[in-house]
Amino acid sequence: MLINCVAYQNGTKLADISVEAISDYVVRPDCFVWVALFDPSDEELELMAEEFGLHELAVEDARKGHQRPKIEEYGSSMFTVLQTVDIDPANPDGDLIVGEVAVFVGRNYVLSVRRKTPQGFQNVRARAEAEPENLARGSGFVLYVIMDTVVDRYFPVLARLEDDLERLETEIFRGTPSAKNIEAFYDLKYRLMVLKHAVASLMEATAKLFGGRVPSVCLGAQEYFRDVYDHLQRINAGIDSQREMLQTGISVTLALVNIADSQVTKRLAAYGALITVPTLLAGIYGMNFDNMPELKSVWGYPLTLTTMLVIDVWLFFKFRKNNWL
Amino acid sequence: MLINCVAYQNGTKLADISVEAISDYVVRPDCFVWVALFDPSDEELELMAEEFGLHELAVEDARKGHQRPKIEEYGSSMFTVLQTVDIDPANPDGDLIVGEVAVFVGRNYVLSVRRKTPQGFQNVRARAEAEPENLARGSGFVLYVIMDTVVDRYFPVLARLEDDLERLETEIFRGTPSAKNIEAFYDLKYRLMVLKHAVASLMEATAKLFGGRVPSVCLGAQEYFRDVYDHLQRINAGIDSQREMLQTGISVTLALVNIADSQVTKRLAAYGALITVPTLLAGIYGMNFDNMPELKSVWGYPLTLTTMLVIDVWLFFKFRKNNWL
Amino acid sequence: MLINCVAYQNGTKLADISVEAISDYVVRPDCFVWVALFDPSDEELELMAEEFGLHELAVEDARKGHQRPKIEEYGSSMFTVLQTVDIDPANPDGDLIVGEVAVFVGRNYVLSVRRKTPQGFQNVRARAEAEPENLARGSGFVLYVIMDTVVDRYFPVLARLEDDLERLETEIFRGTPSAKNIEAFYDLKYRLMVLKHAVASLMEATAKLFGGRVPSVCLGAQEYFRDVYDHLQRINAGIDSQREMLQTGISVTLALVNIADSQVTKRLAAYGALITVPTLLAGIYGMNFDNMPELKSVWGYPLTLTTMLVIDVWLFFKFRKNNWL
Amino acid sequence: MLINCVAYQNGTKLADISVEAISDYVVRPDCFVWVALFDPSDEELELMAEEFGLHELAVEDARKGHQRPKIEEYGSSMFTVLQTVDIDPANPDGDLIVGEVAVFVGRNYVLSVRRKTPQGFQNVRARAEAEPENLARGSGFVLYVIMDTVVDRYFPVLARLEDDLERLETEIFRGTPSAKNIEAFYDLKYRLMVLKHAVASLMEATAKLFGGRVPSVCLGAQEYFRDVYDHLQRINAGIDSQREMLQTGISVTLALVNIADSQVTKRLAAYGALITVPTLLAGIYGMNFDNMPELKSVWGYPLTLTTMLVIDVWLFFKFRKNNWL
Amino acid sequence: MLINCVAYQNGTKLADISVEAISDYVVRPDCFVWVALFDPSDEELELMAEEFGLHELAVEDARKGHQRPKIEEYGSSMFTVLQTVDIDPANPDGDLIVGEVAVFVGRNYVLSVRRKTPQGFQNVRARAEAEPENLARGSGFVLYVIMDTVVDRYFPVLARLEDDLERLETEIFRGTPSAKNIEAFYDLKYRLMVLKHAVASLMEATAKLFGGRVPSVCLGAQEYFRDVYDHLQRINAGIDSQREMLQTGISVTLALVNIADSQVTKRLAAYGALITVPTLLAGIYGMNFDNMPELKSVWGYPLTLTTMLVIDVWLFFKFRKNNWL
Repeated sequence: MLINCVAYQNGTKLADISVEAISDYVVRPDCFVWVALFDPSDEELELMAEEFGLHELAVEDARKGHQRPKIEEYGSSMFTVLQTVDIDPANPDGDLIVGEVAVFVGRNYVLSVRRKTPQGFQNVRARAEAEPENLARGSGFVLYVIMDTVVDRYFPVLARLEDDLERLETEIFRGTPSAKNIEAFYDLKYRLMVLKHAVASLMEATAKLFGGRVPSVCLGAQEYFRDVYDHLQRINAGIDSQREMLQTGISVTLALVNIADSQVTKRLAAYGALITVPTLLAGIYGMNFDNMPELKSVWGYPLTLTTMLVIDVWLFFKFRKNNWL
Repeated sequence: MLINCVAYQNGTKLADISVEAISDYVVRPDCFVWVALFDPSDEELELMAEEFGLHELAVEDARKGHQRPKIEEYGSSMFTVLQTVDIDPANPDGDLIVGEVAVFVGRNYVLSVRRKTPQGFQNVRARAEAEPENLARGSGFVLYVIMDTVVDRYFPVLARLEDDLERLETEIFRGTPSAKNIEAFYDLKYRLMVLKHAVASLMEATAKLFGGRVPSVCLGAQEYFRDVYDHLQRINAGIDSQREMLQTGISVTLALVNIADSQVTKRLAAYGALITVPTLLAGIYGMNFDNMPELKSVWGYPLTLTTMLVIDVWLFFKFRKNNWL
Repeated sequence: MLINCVAYQNGTKLADISVEAISDYVVRPDCFVWVALFDPSDEELELMAEEFGLHELAVEDARKGHQRPKIEEYGSSMFTVLQTVDIDPANPDGDLIVGEVAVFVGRNYVLSVRRKTPQGFQNVRARAEAEPENLARGSGFVLYVIMDTVVDRYFPVLARLEDDLERLETEIFRGTPSAKNIEAFYDLKYRLMVLKHAVASLMEATAKLFGGRVPSVCLGAQEYFRDVYDHLQRINAGIDSQREMLQTGISVTLALVNIADSQVTKRLAAYGALITVPTLLAGIYGMNFDNMPELKSVWGYPLTLTTMLVIDVWLFFKFRKNNWL
Repeated sequence: MLINCVAYQNGTKLADISVEAISDYVVRPDCFVWVALFDPSDEELELMAEEFGLHELAVEDARKGHQRPKIEEYGSSMFTVLQTVDIDPANPDGDLIVGEVAVFVGRNYVLSVRRKTPQGFQNVRARAEAEPENLARGSGFVLYVIMDTVVDRYFPVLARLEDDLERLETEIFRGTPSAKNIEAFYDLKYRLMVLKHAVASLMEATAKLFGGRVPSVCLGAQEYFRDVYDHLQRINAGIDSQREMLQTGISVTLALVNIADSQVTKRLAAYGALITVPTLLAGIYGMNFDNMPELKSVWGYPLTLTTMLVIDVWLFFKFRKNNWL
Repeated sequence: MLINCVAYQNGTKLADISVEAISDYVVRPDCFVWVALFDPSDEELELMAEEFGLHELAVEDARKGHQRPKIEEYGSSMFTVLQTVDIDPANPDGDLIVGEVAVFVGRNYVLSVRRKTPQGFQNVRARAEAEPENLARGSGFVLYVIMDTVVDRYFPVLARLEDDLERLETEIFRGTPSAKNIEAFYDLKYRLMVLKHAVASLMEATAKLFGGRVPSVCLGAQEYFRDVYDHLQRINAGIDSQREMLQTGISVTLALVNIADSQVTKRLAAYGALITVPTLLAGIYGMNFDNMPELKSVWGYPLTLTTMLVIDVWLFFKFRKNNWL
């Protein structure tokens, strides 16, 4: 589905143009065309490939989706794949929604292909058009604005995962940890790895857009790409810290659950002792020997009951003191 | 066993030729010969080595098999070893079938030697011949088509392992985890490492076929090899994620099995308490003291039974509340 | 809030100057201006950006805060972000206080922006002014003095964490480890990772200030930056050692808590045996067989009691010897 | 002890020569001398050092032994230390036998010094002499033949360790794991690390013998050294896989042993319940109340016994169903 | 404290000289001065700094101590910090004694500053003077002799730690592992990390003294520094192996202690079963039913006792067979 198709000159919008007119504008040296597609059909993609002269391997990747984040050069043009990661508003504790934005960038065109991403990129175009002096840097700046938007959307996702972790930590140390917490940790880890996946590959790829040899379309926006890289590093470091705490959290929870269970077993065993001792005494006076003088005594029965009680009270406090109860 | 032996000129098939004719075609600058062998005898390999002038170490490796994936240059020619990994159709949960494809590539020849691989490569030749403009790039493109086919066959294997992992995760969190799950995790890990083995070495080797200094036969197909590399990276990242989840899964399962057992012990100890308390009461009234007025009472027996019941009901709900039962 | 704004010439203080006068001094080749801000408003920052001609991305980072430590070059000027890490004097066992110092350095200006850091940097200026021959090296030396001060403040924090770890280790090996110790370990790990975060990124960034290609403003102070790097390495190595011991400490504590519990269960089971054996004996002589000659004997009762005692004493010492009690 | 001392010309054996004659042959440009020592005395080594002009540090290393595998250049000559690893035929499950082969290689000499290695290297010389066209490449080829022989002997050792691991895995999953299995895993890990030690350092060193700048004596045999490197990589990858499985195996076994024990405890507790319930019933009818009508009934006793049986049978099947028995 | 101060010419000792005379000798191109200090006062260090023209940062490091091992260049002179690691002879199982040796090396001077190191370096000077042809290489050779001595003293420390590990391993597998073993492992790990700390940083730094660009004072002794590097690598590899075994050892011990405890619990539960079964039987014949024909029988009592015994003997052997006892 074609979202929009606009030609720009010196950083200002010229006009919304038709797809067929693209090739006319692309050849004008001072112009560039910015096209946005959403879940395009194979025919739409094929048409774009012809208009812009895209490389078949890149088109194939954009068509199939399910790529890892990457930045590839094909001659003087570039092919970038970004993953968008969103919390599902309908099920915030469920799996993260992973979408894909493929961006083709040439000296005078930008083609973005969005798939599955719930949030649109309308504000991206608005933001870019609001800074004509920067937009005049050309297609490289558009790529920066798209990447920056995608990367900035990782922050709330990470923050959410950090909140989840903190809540879990409070639960296991304040309440009684259970097998349910373990599953929650496990799920959290899974979601964290989805985010890690999107971030790590992109970070690695972005490092090539500033510093040493830089693709020509990105030359004027190097410092901007370094800024994106810096954000990615920040998120990545946050993910790694969280991953380490999570790993420790899982083993601690597993151990705490086990400890909680064996403490109950321990307490039950201690209570058991409080029962078996008077049972032994009762057994002794239940024996049928002829010669058991205590049995004849009037005080035998009440004394025995008192003895049972005294022993149990004494044991109870002894166990308490030893932390056995 | 010779599968086929074909000469090509400018990307189109010239003719099926006899093995003896190979050396005649190899010297013609605009031709190349593509030979496919399956489980060849030592003599067949020796003959090929002579016809193509192959290096003795490479021939030795192809003869012995059981190599790790690698790409080696011998002067201007190349020797590539690929591992095919397939699920055994007869036993999909059993060990993966690892086969081997050794490919010798020179400026105007390609020799592939397949061993143990259950799936053939007939469609590879068909696919290559269907793109004469690409086939005209020469032997490097043929190498790409073979590698691409082998690598694409890793995806369903990985997907299968991911399904297995997901099924195991559901089992341990939804059902009752058992020692059997642990063995299943362990087996899965083993199969994952077989795949990792095939992928990691090949990925590392493929990185040398594009970018910096590239073997001359691969020069025209650099972007294609980068695409193969990209697929390998994707599989590799998937394997690593899965490996991490698997490791966590194993420890979680081990702990859950242990927790399940000690919970049963805990519950049995709690039920035990429900038995021992009335037993104590029965023991008390089984004592043989002369002076036990309750024994004479008509209501003694039914009251005692009621007391037993009341205590047990009270304990039962108390234990329930404490999550001891 | 503006802390101070001073112009220097040849390493000696010229005068406290007004913000508006900055641009006059900055153009004088033999002068440099050193401005310190604390929690500045957006307007103050904007004004500085104009006076010094700062890059918008760097200003944005300084405005938003919450950056990771980094050193970036913008043309011939530099932007440095440092994290200060302090123990909260009001709650020394609580979370560490992480503040931020952003430093803009050009050939003839230094602008430091401090946020949330409880300790001020007055002594930094005093120290720098006390060494006019070094201050004459220019703005790079000022950057060194600021970095050195920030880094030197990490040492007492690390020392405190090391003391905490040592105290915890003594507790688990000398006393009885409990779930409380585990939480203390977990908290300590969290605080350690906060420090690690501040140190690791800065160390990596500092490595670019000496040795190979060095930003021009730092050229005269290379050996000083290597010294800062060396301190960072020392702290980093200390953190890594502690982290490893901490990880081991957590697993050891978890295991020891579990061991302590199952030892109590074991001892209770052993004590239980001391009760059940005489109970069996009492049960036997409580049977109602007509023909039990022992029951008639005068010595039957005392002998049975003695037997019970002898068995229990024997069992007690046997269990002791086996380390079951 | 001198094993042999032979002079070669153009790849063919000239003559067995005396030690004193070595220096005469070494100066002839078309000759090289190959000397093999076994457990040499200090005097023998000193004599060799003089004849060949060896560097004192290398001689010191060869004299003392217990070096890690390495390859060092001293001017135009090379000093190589290899570790041989063998299974002790007298005690195949015991420690591996680690021997040492130090090789001095110059443009026209090879001196090998073997220590503790049980297997000799006679067949090495035979193999080299069987390929005069390769031996004509000079001393570098002799080094290759020695290294190749040493490395090829690692394969059966690795295979043996893999068999041991597989046997252990079968034992823990099929039989009942015990503390004995843990010790076996631990021992296996130790032996694996001995092999790893020999392989990893050598692999790293061998990488310098092909590709980039190569020591002059190895120039003609680069592809052969790459082959050795490839074998080392294969072994190394095998070791790493096995190490990972082993680590997992140890934790799985530890957990399984613990699980097995707590399952027995669980089952004993369940059987205990089958005993305590009828004991309670017996206790009730052992009470001495005057008014217990059941006691008078003719059917009281058999009914009680039947009730006991029925309860136990019911519990038994209930526990079975719950997997508690 | 000044240990000694000697001037050398062409590798031979000229004379013991006074501190004031140092600057006279240092300017003579064919001379070098070697000064050794032990725990120097600030004044002594200041005096040396003046005589030799040392850099203030290096002097500061030598004054404060507690540095990590490192090698730094200041112009054409070098500053080296080494850590000595010794076993405390008064308490061989206690903490290792870490001392420090700082060495300043210029073209014609060597200044060593020793702190806390229990063993002196007299034999170092003796050894250097014994090889005048090597000492003639100048100050770089003196640095080598000092480093070599420090590094050689690591070997017995490592050997001692390896012995300790082996003793602990024997204890846990042969005897009964206890919480005490865990603490011993933990302490051993701590000591190992102290050694690792000294070795790893130094190894990394030493790598810069041979091979590529080498500080000018070390040029003539490159092969010697490579030898030191090689020793450090050997120690480092030994430490890493031991660390891995230690980590495994800790988890194995923790698990074995737990297993030992739960095995006792298991055995006590099994013995408990041997008691409860006859108790049930006794309970049954302790019931007060009127109609229990067995009670009248003369053989009732002895038969019951025999039944109890037979059941227990049968259970005992059954439990033995199942490895429950």
